Parts: sequence; C-alpha cells; structure tokens
Amino acid sequence: MKVGFVGLGRMGAEIARRLLSKNGRLTVWNRTKGKAEGLVKEGATLAKSLDELAASEIVFSMLPDDQTIDETLLRSGVFDQARSGIIHVNLSTISPGFSSKLAEYHRTKGQKYVSAPVLGRPEAARAGQLTILAAGDPEALAMLQPLLDSFGKKTWALGAEAEKANVVKLANNLMLAAAVESMSEASALVGGYGLEAGRFLEIANSGPFACPVYQLYGKAIASEAFEPAGFSARLGAKDVRLGLAAGEEAGVPMPMFSAVRDSLLEAKALGDEEKDLAVLGRIARARAGRR
Amino acid sequence: MKVGFVGLGRMGAEIARRLLSKNGRLTVWNRTKGKAEGLVKEGATLAKSLDELAASEIVFSMLPDDQTIDETLLRSGVFDQARSGIIHVNLSTISPGFSSKLAEYHRTKGQKYVSAPVLGRPEAARAGQLTILAAGDPEALAMLQPLLDSFGKKTWALGAEAEKANVVKLANNLMLAAAVESMSEASALVGGYGLEAGRFLEIANSGPFACPVYQLYGKAIASEAFEPAGFSARLGAKDVRLGLAAGEEAGVPMPMFSAVRDSLLEAKALGDEEKDLAVLGRIARARAGRR
Amino acid sequence: MKVGFVGLGRMGAEIARRLLSKNGRLTVWNRTKGKAEGLVKEGATLAKSLDELAASEIVFSMLPDDQTIDETLLRSGVFDQARSGIIHVNLSTISPGFSSKLAEYHRTKGQKYVSAPVLGRPEAARAGQLTILAAGDPEALAMLQPLLDSFGKKTWALGAEAEKANVVKLANNLMLAAAVESMSEASALVGGYGLEAGRFLEIANSGPFACPVYQLYGKAIASEAFEPAGFSARLGAKDVRLGLAAGEEAGVPMPMFSAVRDSLLEAKALGDEEKDLAVLGRIARARAGRR
Amino acid sequence: MKVGFVGLGRMGAEIARRLLSKNGRLTVWNRTKGKAEGLVKEGATLAKSLDELAASEIVFSMLPDDQTIDETLLRSGVFDQARSGIIHVNLSTISPGFSSKLAEYHRTKGQKYVSAPVLGRPEAARAGQLTILAAGDPEALAMLQPLLDSFGKKTWALGAEAEKANVVKLANNLMLAAAVESMSEASALVGGYGLEAGRFLEIANSGPFACPVYQLYGKAIASEAFEPAGFSARLGAKDVRLGLAAGEEAGVPMPMFSAVRDSLLEAKALGDEEKDLAVLGRIARARAGRR
Repeated sequence: MKVGFVGLGRMGAEIARRLLSKNGRLTVWNRTKGKAEGLVKEGATLAKSLDELAASEIVFSMLPDDQTIDETLLRSGVFDQARSGIIHVNLSTISPGFSSKLAEYHRTKGQKYVSAPVLGRPEAARAGQLTILAAGDPEALAMLQPLLDSFGKKTWALGAEAEKANVVKLANNLMLAAAVESMSEASALVGGYGLEAGRFLEIANSGPFACPVYQLYGKAIASEAFEPAGFSARLGAKDVRLGLAAGEEAGVPMPMFSAVRDSLLEAKALGDEEKDLAVLGRIARARAGRR
Repeated sequence: MKVGFVGLGRMGAEIARRLLSKNGRLTVWNRTKGKAEGLVKEGATLAKSLDELAASEIVFSMLPDDQTIDETLLRSGVFDQARSGIIHVNLSTISPGFSSKLAEYHRTKGQKYVSAPVLGRPEAARAGQLTILAAGDPEALAMLQPLLDSFGKKTWALGAEAEKANVVKLANNLMLAAAVESMSEASALVGGYGLEAGRFLEIANSGPFACPVYQLYGKAIASEAFEPAGFSARLGAKDVRLGLAAGEEAGVPMPMFSAVRDSLLEAKALGDEEKDLAVLGRIARARAGRR
Repeated sequence: MKVGFVGLGRMGAEIARRLLSKNGRLTVWNRTKGKAEGLVKEGATLAKSLDELAASEIVFSMLPDDQTIDETLLRSGVFDQARSGIIHVNLSTISPGFSSKLAEYHRTKGQKYVSAPVLGRPEAARAGQLTILAAGDPEALAMLQPLLDSFGKKTWALGAEAEKANVVKLANNLMLAAAVESMSEASALVGGYGLEAGRFLEIANSGPFACPVYQLYGKAIASEAFEPAGFSARLGAKDVRLGLAAGEEAGVPMPMFSAVRDSLLEAKALGDEEKDLAVLGRIARARAGRR
Repeated sequence: MKVGFVGLGRMGAEIARRLLSKNGRLTVWNRTKGKAEGLVKEGATLAKSLDELAASEIVFSMLPDDQTIDETLLRSGVFDQARSGIIHVNLSTISPGFSSKLAEYHRTKGQKYVSAPVLGRPEAARAGQLTILAAGDPEALAMLQPLLDSFGKKTWALGAEAEKANVVKLANNLMLAAAVESMSEASALVGGYGLEAGRFLEIANSGPFACPVYQLYGKAIASEAFEPAGFSARLGAKDVRLGLAAGEEAGVPMPMFSAVRDSLLEAKALGDEEKDLAVLGRIARARAGRR
C-alpha cells in the first residue's frame, strides 16, 4: 500500500520505522529534513515536497499540536490534491474540538479521518508495544488494523467519533500528571518528617500503587533523575492545558487537575520545564522550603 | 505471652482473631461489649474492665482517632498500673504529633511504644495479608515480629521514631484519595464527551494504572457501587484532614491534596459521606451538571 | 477629525455616543446593522462597508475577543487600505499576546496602535465616567486624550507597550471575580450556621470591604438578583481564562484564581453562565448542599 | 460595676484601657504579669490570682485561641467560684464549636456568655473605633452596651446564639486573607509583564477596590513593608484554618479559601510567618520565579 508519514520527531520516527518494516515501503516528510535520514537508509522514500503525500492511500501524521497540524496539513492544501478515499490517521495528542474539525474537513472532501493517539514512550513504540486509542470511520479502522498492529500491542476501538480517542488520551494524561504530583506532594510530606522519598515510594509503589506510571515516575522522583526528560514537564503541561480546556468546553470542572496545572506552571517559572515531568517532586519540596 | 487488645471494630476484630490464633490466648476489651462475643467464642478472654489489661506484656490498640485514644487509654490511667516494660502497639491511623506524644508518655513510664498502622482492608487482615508500617523501640519491634506476621504479609521497619510510621500511612492515604478523585474527574471529562466511565477506566487501569488502588476503586466508580462502603468517604476525609494537618505542622503545602479535601467535603454536604470513597465519582459528575 | 467606530455592542454603543457628541461626527460599522440605528439617528454615519473606515484618522474598536478582531479587522484587510499614520484604538479586553501582535501589525504598516480597555459598566460609559487603561504610541496617546476624556473620567497612562494596558485590565478582572467568589464562599459559610448572607455582607461591606465591587455584587448575592446580568458569569469566565492564560504565558502561577475558574465552570455546568457573575453565590451554596 | 479582664496582649490591653477609662475601675489578670504594668499605673487593679476575678459582675477575656481559653478559664475552675449571673464576654477569635461549648458551660452554671469578637487593629481599639460582632444572651448584651461602646464605634447584634458572632468574624477574615492573596497574585501577574505592583494597585484600589482592606494591604504589598507585622501571616493562617474547619464542620466546601491556606503555608515554609499578612505578595512573586 502507498503509505505516507508526516512528523518524524522521536515518537514519530519510531512508529514510522515499524510501519516501514511492516508495509515494505513508506514515503516520509519532515520539516527538518535531517530527521528523515535514518529512515531513508532503512528504505523509506523521502518526499521532495509535502504535496507528494497526496498520492498516498493512507497518511499518518505525528505533529506536535493543533496549530502545527493546521498550518502543515490544512493551510498547505495538501489534502486538496489527495485522492478521494484517502485515510488520514492522526497520532498526535490534540484537542477534541480540533479533532472534530479535522474529521469534518476530510468528510467534506470525501476523505476519511481516524484519530489514533497512543499511550507509551518511544521505547514502547520501537518494540511495537504501544497502546492505541482509535476512533473514526469504522471501515477505515478495520482496514488500518494490520498497520496499527505493527507498532501497538493493543488497539482500543472507541467508536466513530474521532474526538473520543483524543478525550480518552487527555483524560489518561491528566491522571498521569496527577499521579506524579501526588507522589511529589506525598514525598514532600514524609520529607518534612525526616523520611526519604525513596523509602516511602518503595512502600507505596510495591503495594497499592504497584503500576507502571507510579513505579517509573516514583523512581525518578526518589533519585531526582530529571534529565534527560522521558516526558518533559512542558509536554505534561501542554496535555494538562488541553485536558482542562476540553473540560471547559464540555462544562466539566476538574478542580484537582487545576491544582496540577499550577504546579506545572511553577516548574516553568523555576526554569524546569524541559526537565522530566518527575521534576514536580522537586517543585513540591521547594514549596516546603527545602531545596 | 500475655497479650491484650483494645478496639474491636471491623478491622480490629480481624487482627485480634489472627493474634488469638497465633498466641493461643488474648484478653480483649471493647466499649461496646457485644462486639467481643465472636472472639470470646473462639477462645479470647473478655476483660471485665480496661484495668485488667494493665497485666499484659503487650497491648495492641485499634481505636478510631487521637481523641478516643486519649480518653480511653491515657485519661483512664490504665497504663499507670501497667507493668514496667509493657509494650503498647498502636495500630490506628493517628496524627504524627499525637504519636510522638504517646511515645513520650510511655517513655516517661518506662514503657515501650510502637506505632504500627496498616495498609489493607478487613479482608486482607482476615487473610493475614496486611502491610504493616512499623516504627518505635527497636527491641520491642524485634520481639513483636512473630505477632505482626500473624496478620501481615510484610512489615516495613521505619526507624525508632514512632511518628514516622504514621506519616507514611497518611501520605499513602492522601495518595489513595487523590487517585480516586483523579479517576472521578477523568471519568467526568470523558462523560462530557459521551463516553462511559467504565470504558475509559478499563483502558487506563489495564495499562498505565494497572494497580490495586486504581482497579478496585475504578470498578466501583464505573458501576456506581457505593454501598456498602469498604472505606467510607468519611474515613477518607478524616485521613486527608490528618494528612493536611501533618503538612501544616511541618510546613509542607500540598495544594493538590487540598483540592481533594474540598471534593470530600462536597460528598459530606451532599449527604454521601457514609458511602464508599468511590462516591467521589458521583460528586465529580454532579459538579459537571450530570446527576 | 475623521473618526471611525467598529463594534456597537452595549458598551461600544455608549462609548460611540460620547465620541459622536464630542467630535461632532462619527462613522460607525457593525456586523448586525440594526444596532447602528440609534447612533445614526443621533447623527452618526453608517459605513456601507468596513472598507470605508480605512479613510479615518482614528478607528476605535470594541469587539468581543481576539478571534473576532482577527477575523473582522485583520483578515478583512481593512487596514491594508488605510492611510499611513492612522491610529487604531482597541477598547476590548483581549490577551496581552494578541495585543502585542496587533501593535506589531500596525507598526509594520506605518500605523499606530493604542490599547485602551476600560473599567466600568455601560452606565458609567453613558455618563462619561469610565476608567481608561491606556498604553501604546505616546504621541498617539497624547492626541487621543480629548476623545478619551469624552467617555472616561480618568485615563491611566501605562507606557508604550500596548499589552500592558491589557494585562492590567485582566489583573483587575481576576480580582473582581475573586472578590465575588470570596463573598460567595463566605456567605455559604455563615449560611451553614443559620445566618443570612445579606446580614453578613452588610457588616463586611460597610466596613473593611466598603468599596464598589463588594457593595454592588454583595447586594446581588444577598438578594439573589442574578438576572438580567450586568456582567455575566460567561464574560467573567472569559476574562478569568484570559488572565490565567496570560499568567501561563509569563510563567506566573495564580492558584487562588485557578480555583475561581473552577467555580465559574460549575456555573456553566449548572446552566447559569448567562446569569450575572453574582450567581457564584448560588453555586457556593449549592456546593454546600443548599439549593 | 465590678469588671475583670483577662488577656493583656496588644489588642487586649487597648480594649482594657478603654474599659478602665469608662468604668473607672478594672481588675486585670495576665499570665505574664509585666504586661499589666501600664494599666495598673493608669488605675487598674492587678489580681493576685485568677480566682479574684470570680468576684466580678462581668469578665472580659481576650486570649489567643480555643486551647488557651480552655486551660486558663475552664480547667482552672475560676468560674466554679463565680457569682451566679456573672457575664463572660469573650472577645477572641475562636471556633464556633468552642463558642457553643462555652455558652453551654456557663448556662449550666447559671452564668451568662456573650461572644464579642472585634474587627479592627489595635490602633482602632485605642481610638474606640472597633467594630464589634456580638451574640449571646440578649439581656446581658443590652446591659453590656455602654461598656462595648467604650471601645467600639458600632456593635452588630447577631442574635442569641453565641457561635454566630464567631462565624461572622471568621467569614470576614477569610475574605480578608483572600483579598490579600488576590492582590498578591494579580501583582505577580502584572509583574510578569514588567509592570510594578504599586502602579497596578494604585489603579485598582482607587477605583473598584477603594476600601480599607485593599488600600492598607495593597500599600504594604507594593512597598514590601512586611515588618513589623500589623497582622501576621501566622495569625492570618490561624483564622483561615479556623474558618476552613468551621466549613468542614458545617459541610461547606470553600475551594478558593483552601487555595489561600496553601499560600499561607508556603509563607510558613519559607520562614515568613511572623511577617505581615501582606508577605503573601512576596510568596506569589517567588512562585513565579522572581525573588
């Protein structure tokens, strides 16, 4: 099949590699050309211009945010020239509202849109172990499944409305940020009584909280391993912002998540936003006067 | 050994049962006598008065809060008559400050104090599967270990300062309440976009949040199974209050946990405080205008 | 002078009326033509198209938000045809970021931009009693003063950077919303002890809080006079959202104002967003279980 | 009349001085005797022991908190020896719950209890310009009025239930702390855009917020005049804690006031709790990374 891929950031590149391996061929495009080199060596075709992707049957995109997608894929008009029936699979974490808009955009062109944000880190992508949250045109989804299986271990089908996949992704990431803030505040508390965060988190995370999110971020908080960032405070803040905005749009107050937003903003204010999300541990401790 | 036990609530009774079975004998006391009946049938001795416990080598207590312990065990003067070297093992969730006060109280009497709050529900106690957080006199702790093993699967030794066990317990329960509020707000969000809480929580809790706390409370939130309460919103609110007060005492701001406090207070205001902590799911949804 | 005015909502119309009266003539434009009728009867000229305003020496605008200004004034290209040296005076409450963008936009065209949001209600505008927060090109500001004086009793000059006027307006309105929430929560508290909100607010607002914002909204809270809205919860929420976003942009956490955002969102969720901002009083009471 | 006074802190001493002046005589007692010297020189009688006050017709008390009153006046048994019909006027800011308990305590002894917390600073007391919030036995209240008028410019009668005066005091002080936090966060925001807090507060506090609380604390925030403390962050935190606890008792969530609590706790954590409440301005700025 003729498959295109736009957006070769760290996560995008890993997914593209799996797709290339599965499909045998893949046409890739990235604003910064250098990022495509590795894939081209492995057999991918580098599109000379974005317009070449219009000839694809399926285009995957993994771009950073609503605005970049708007500028790169919509305002460029690349889909104006695309074949009827082309499927656009958007892997990015975007707002539900913009996802609906994308779905409508493609519908009016006789094209198909599938929203497929993923849970997991780049290493999981490399191993084909991502969790995929998929929503959109059911036929398109069925056809895509073998390709999705190349980078995901499990695809959750969330219905025909594309935005639903995005809201699930945001809800999950709000919970993730809250879990990190929770360990951070609890660690600051035990620290206030002379106990090490690591000791406390070992207890909590081997029992009631023995799950990936707590164990992964718990270790980073305990050992203050904030660099390099696996998932930065800045990206965490972006997802929390999108999540709260989605709540605002739908009339859903989420006061505890609002409090997480403020801690993330403190991380920014203190110059820590490019560090790992686990840096919230340091923020909570600083707030208690310990640096 | 001569072992006494005060406080035969649901959790206390299960632990007492395990101790009786292990030690062969146990003298019990409870304000409401009826609650001792089961244990007496199984071989425990019912103390005619609290004073009888003064003859014990070890006294376990599982009373609801600081004030009840103060009134029942301190103001009653029962320990004034106790043998020197008696060990008081306090299993309750109390404030670190009051725990220190208890340690000091016994020290001045030549007695020993061990703080040993537990993680787990009554069913885990019955199965001898609790997690025990223990701190206090090291010799006493070593001597107690076989008895602790009768109801716990794991004892975490947290040093000689009794209050440390209590602060770990509070930190853990703050995290627990926050996890429940987190699922509640996230579920309200996806609900605002027409998705069922159960569907969303199935995804989150089989992946990044695949741990006991999330799975247990997630199911209750999804199915709206709030009665009977395993752990009531009222008890959750008590622990959050103690946790925040411990932070206040030590100068540790915990803004996200403060937000949880307000949701628990809403549960009280709406008449739901005797329901399971999972009722926060309903509160979050009501706040979004869906009842 | 040739003066144009765009945006004849309730506030815009009152200001336009004062400008017309002062300047003798005024060319007005509004998307909904009907709203211009009153002013035309009083002597204003109705522009047949927005392009006519390009011939003005000064154009005032009072449009609802960033996006409407972008669509109406920027994308329409009306300023492309405008005379060099034209002054655009923007009276709206917009984001500081967009205000900077507007300043840059006009600068590159050799035009001048002044940001002049106002404090006060339509009645104050009608009486020429608004407070004007002005920032932008100093020469333009000096020249504008007589016109500003026609609707304002006081102009605060906030320097050459236009965005500063906007951030002052947002900071003020964050304080306003917080004051209303403060009275609402305090009233709910005394209500929990059987005291009337009105009795309490009479005390507070005749003493330590004897100022316009408290007295005006305090009366509305006490008497539950939420309709018609003087300043709606929806508009309050818009300003709080802009204010929090401005804080996010500049790395300024404002946790108390975040809490106000959530109460405003509850107002939306409960269907009260078109009621007066004072409806926060009802929200606080409902949260306490009293309806 | 035989009038006694207990608690000669800064505020207590000023009120006692006015009472002495009005009544001609006053028997005073204070734990630290030195504090009574000034009043004795002016004609007050120093009680040799607290018991002497039992001979009074009216006893005023101005002690720091619930616990001190409990220890000083209740556990000491001073009122056991008091004449029937004695009136105890409690001027302190205490919890509504403890106020009810005091009322009940005196009722069972055939004595009368009036709760009369005050609004205003020591300078206002000195000038006889306090605002008095009074509740309790109506006959006692009527009889007291001339004495209250000696230090207050206005007495608000809040009914027969003593606790109502206390809840009004707490509600007022919650609003006060929130107003200070509001100015602090708003000032941090404008600071993030390069504007001075003083400039902004001058605008807000000469218009919509032109009232004593805003103007007094606004000046302190703008000029960073945090010492000596007029009303310390520690005392502010005490009142906020009492206020939130009163809300918890009555089932009234106050999420915005909860956020104020956390800022006050940060002040404590950063070693600023003995500074003026206005130090919240510095806390808000520090949170934004500016020190």
